[in-house]
Amino acid sequence: MVRLLDQRALPDRVRILKCNSVEQVARAIETLAVRGAPAIGVAGAWGVALAAWKSKGGDGARVRKSILEAVERLARTRPTARNLFWAMEAMRKKLSELASAAAPEVRAAILEEAERLVGIEEESNRRIGLAGADLVPTEARILTHCNTGPLATGSFGTALGVVIEASRRGKKVEVFADETRPLFQGARLTCWELERHGIPVTLIVDGAAASVMRDRKIDLAIVGADRIAANGDTANKIGTFGVACAAKRLGIPFYVAAPLTTFDVEIRDGREIPIEERSRREVEWVGSRRIAPRKVKVFNPAFDVTPNDLISAIMTDRGVLKAPYVQSIAQAMKDDSGGRVAVA
Amino acid sequence: MVRLLDQRALPDRVRILKCNSVEQVARAIETLAVRGAPAIGVAGAWGVALAAWKSKGGDGARVRKSILEAVERLARTRPTARNLFWAMEAMRKKLSELASAAAPEVRAAILEEAERLVGIEEESNRRIGLAGADLVPTEARILTHCNTGPLATGSFGTALGVVIEASRRGKKVEVFADETRPLFQGARLTCWELERHGIPVTLIVDGAAASVMRDRKIDLAIVGADRIAANGDTANKIGTFGVACAAKRLGIPFYVAAPLTTFDVEIRDGREIPIEERSRREVEWVGSRRIAPRKVKVFNPAFDVTPNDLISAIMTDRGVLKAPYVQSIAQAMKDDSGGRVAVA
Repeated sequence: MVRLLDQRALPDRVRILKCNSVEQVARAIETLAVRGAPAIGVAGAWGVALAAWKSKGGDGARVRKSILEAVERLARTRPTARNLFWAMEAMRKKLSELASAAAPEVRAAILEEAERLVGIEEESNRRIGLAGADLVPTEARILTHCNTGPLATGSFGTALGVVIEASRRGKKVEVFADETRPLFQGARLTCWELERHGIPVTLIVDGAAASVMRDRKIDLAIVGADRIAANGDTANKIGTFGVACAAKRLGIPFYVAAPLTTFDVEIRDGREIPIEERSRREVEWVGSRRIAPRKVKVFNPAFDVTPNDLISAIMTDRGVLKAPYVQSIAQAMKDDSGGRVAVA
Repeated sequence: MVRLLDQRALPDRVRILKCNSVEQVARAIETLAVRGAPAIGVAGAWGVALAAWKSKGGDGARVRKSILEAVERLARTRPTARNLFWAMEAMRKKLSELASAAAPEVRAAILEEAERLVGIEEESNRRIGLAGADLVPTEARILTHCNTGPLATGSFGTALGVVIEASRRGKKVEVFADETRPLFQGARLTCWELERHGIPVTLIVDGAAASVMRDRKIDLAIVGADRIAANGDTANKIGTFGVACAAKRLGIPFYVAAPLTTFDVEIRDGREIPIEERSRREVEWVGSRRIAPRKVKVFNPAFDVTPNDLISAIMTDRGVLKAPYVQSIAQAMKDDSGGRVAVA
């Protein structure tokens, strides 16, 4: 069984979702019970492990088949987060190495691979925080968008991990959190996580980000990422590009924090990143309140792409990357010890 | 009695608010049953007229006193919209001219002044549409923020008036409407008004404005204004500055549409414009749904200031003004026929 904290219920209730099938894990990802690129990758890995675990009988070929079906189902859940595809590709590669293995061996190897992948995400998160916190001033007013803390990653957090690590080092940090429409991940999750860490946080609507950055003298903006192309163009929660435009205008550093597992070096630039469009319902309704006329046309992209020239630096588990990103990203992927992250 | 369309109930219900006292009109403005700078000015003028109308008995001094109290109460409702203060200053000036008038004369003069002020707003709106529509291409994809149509102005609309006039001239216009958190004026009111005018509209969350402008090839952005300083710096609904930053980055024209009654030439630049902060509740709750942890700190400014260099042109009832705005605004105020708008 895979247990997932149901993020849709937060902050009102702490509800645990018990998944007994791959389909349940897939639905949890699709309905955003689990969200955040690294957390989606981790949930995907556990979903595949669940398939291995549940395939009790049968020979090696049959077990491999049901694991492959799980990989394919989970890869169809959401299109943008790179970490999911990274985990699924790693699972495919592992399966191909097990072409002639017996059932128990396949099961054991896939469970071990899931643990390895989850371990990589966890370790990466920790390293992002360590590298990124160096760039946070001793006293810092920080703006963030969406949620990038432990909930989004399954471990320490990416952008919020940097903030939490800076606070842990005794830096005086204060956060302004964009509520992040349509699903309020900033209001519901970022505020909740920061309060639990004792870090001062002020909630604002997304539209207030630009004037708050100027009028409240924000020192830096920091966000996570769902997929980063070879040139540093970054897909992240819808609204990120607007924050980056305002930060550029105001001369405020704009940082992206993400593990190497979020990088997709097969993709040259942001135009090739697939952007998920989600249901009109997410925009049209808030709880039981309809906020728009019936039948009005709605466009609801879940992510946008921020071009690399708006990004001051990318905080990764291989250190802080700077422009020109084509070179610094290629170098970081090359440095990746023993092809830990590489799956191609 | 002053009858107001209760904008809080839209688009679900068309509810008329019947105000029998100045206090009721003031509360309607404070609670946003009436909103939009020109509409607030118009409601204020009718509120003062109501005070004159209701002061049946008494001598001239007593009538003047109750009218002055109405002016003072209404001027305390909301701090940012210039049009309200323009109307209240005009009423004060009129009262000072009536220092020795008898009660019936005061009442008649104030009612007449209210009609004159409302007439100026109406005529101004019409002229903004005529001047602004020239700048809309024959086929245009337009982004707008908040609501600036008939509802916001009491007559034709400012920014939306330009769009409606362009459509009326046979131009093929299509609008992307920011929902405009926290109170969803874009979703609730702009979509509703455009649909009623048969103009294609697509609703997006505020965070999507920047990427929609880029990826959906928006031709121009157009917004209204709550107060414009002598140098063209413009206070408008929170989120406007962010849209302007993104438009600048993308090389998309960013227009402000407003009557001269929105200009405050006593104020040199945007830093002097008072920005209203509204209740945390507007951000924290949507209908019966709480979207943030209890007690989280909330900052809820209702407006932001867009600096003049981000504004491509200001569409007014005295034509289209361009930079340098200090000169073009001063000239427009001077051109104002017979000091129609001037009250100082």
